[in-house]
Amino acid sequence: MKKFAVILAGCGNKDGAEIGESLTTLLSIDQCGVSYDIFAPDKQVFHTLNYITGEEIPDRRNVMLEAARIARGDIRPLSEYAAANYDALVLPGGFGAAKNLCDYAIKGAEMTVDKEVEKAVLDTHTLGKPIGALCIAPVIIAKLIPNANVTSGNDPDTIKNMLEMGARHTPTQAGEYVYDAENNLYSTPCYMLPNARISEVYSGVFNMIKAMVASILP
Amino acid sequence: MKKFAVILAGCGNKDGAEIGESLTTLLSIDQCGVSYDIFAPDKQVFHTLNYITGEEIPDRRNVMLEAARIARGDIRPLSEYAAANYDALVLPGGFGAAKNLCDYAIKGAEMTVDKEVEKAVLDTHTLGKPIGALCIAPVIIAKLIPNANVTSGNDPDTIKNMLEMGARHTPTQAGEYVYDAENNLYSTPCYMLPNARISEVYSGVFNMIKAMVASILP
Repeated sequence: MKKFAVILAGCGNKDGAEIGESLTTLLSIDQCGVSYDIFAPDKQVFHTLNYITGEEIPDRRNVMLEAARIARGDIRPLSEYAAANYDALVLPGGFGAAKNLCDYAIKGAEMTVDKEVEKAVLDTHTLGKPIGALCIAPVIIAKLIPNANVTSGNDPDTIKNMLEMGARHTPTQAGEYVYDAENNLYSTPCYMLPNARISEVYSGVFNMIKAMVASILP
Repeated sequence: MKKFAVILAGCGNKDGAEIGESLTTLLSIDQCGVSYDIFAPDKQVFHTLNYITGEEIPDRRNVMLEAARIARGDIRPLSEYAAANYDALVLPGGFGAAKNLCDYAIKGAEMTVDKEVEKAVLDTHTLGKPIGALCIAPVIIAKLIPNANVTSGNDPDTIKNMLEMGARHTPTQAGEYVYDAENNLYSTPCYMLPNARISEVYSGVFNMIKAMVASILP
């Protein structure tokens, strides 16, 4: 059976992996008859927020242990990811993708990518395997893969930063995804679209995953 | 527009709300064209676990603040729930339902229900509105509503405890739900079924929510 790898950035849209995007990714992969393993960096989160007040709280949580909540405990440290063992890689979004997988939330176009995330993305890309990125996670692709064509929905600041990093940008609406055939990259906007509904997030993710699965089947 | 209320028991299957069950509940409600508000008890969690080792960690987290991660911050204290303002009530499962919404995980059939949860369920039931419960959450219904007919999939210990609490039990398989017409109650087994897949969880939840929505439309 074909197998996807999914990298989660914690648990929760404000400081970790966006939960709806993560869950609809896993659901879509399963609905397409493919299996998956879940990975996360085994390191401290950038910060932990109170989701009602938005204020930082003193907890020093761990990215992998929080992501394990979404994974029901079935998770692996990202250091163990080997691109050769998987057929595709997916990065859900949420602010954790921009705080824990890279520092885009702080540095914008001057961002750097976590070394394990960089290795996972570049190894997968070098092997010619498809990579999918949701919401804000395409900034990681934009930074690492020259001339990548990705989407952020239609967010002006993100588009500006993506272009500055050497990427191209294609606008999208709810339910849509962008396929960069030259680089075998997929992206879908999810909550980058203002007032996105969970059914719209699911629709875009499902369409993207379905296309990724079709591309790896014989 | 018709509106559901959803009660979450934290964030994560081992000590909070099961994330896949919670998300597929919200997704299904949205897909059926109905809106929702999310509630949780504003109190300390029973305990917080390391999801890889299973050991308790010293964090004293708050049920509502953790559930707010699933709700993207848009959550209300359960004390503010008024049954008159909603058309239906849903309780996703996960161990949090059996540790934070009641103490079933510790006391079995001798369990007591959190006072705010009890009031929410009984007020909704008294008004004749439908209540749906997922996974282990039907034990709460079994305790509060005499002669309730619910499902736990086919788990022998849970069935025994439900019967002892005065409820009836109907076995179910993946994708199925039970409707108790006499009491206007719905339940679906989700992860009570061994090796349940996320696509099977979604299927059962969607079928249940679709039936609940159909029952409240004119």
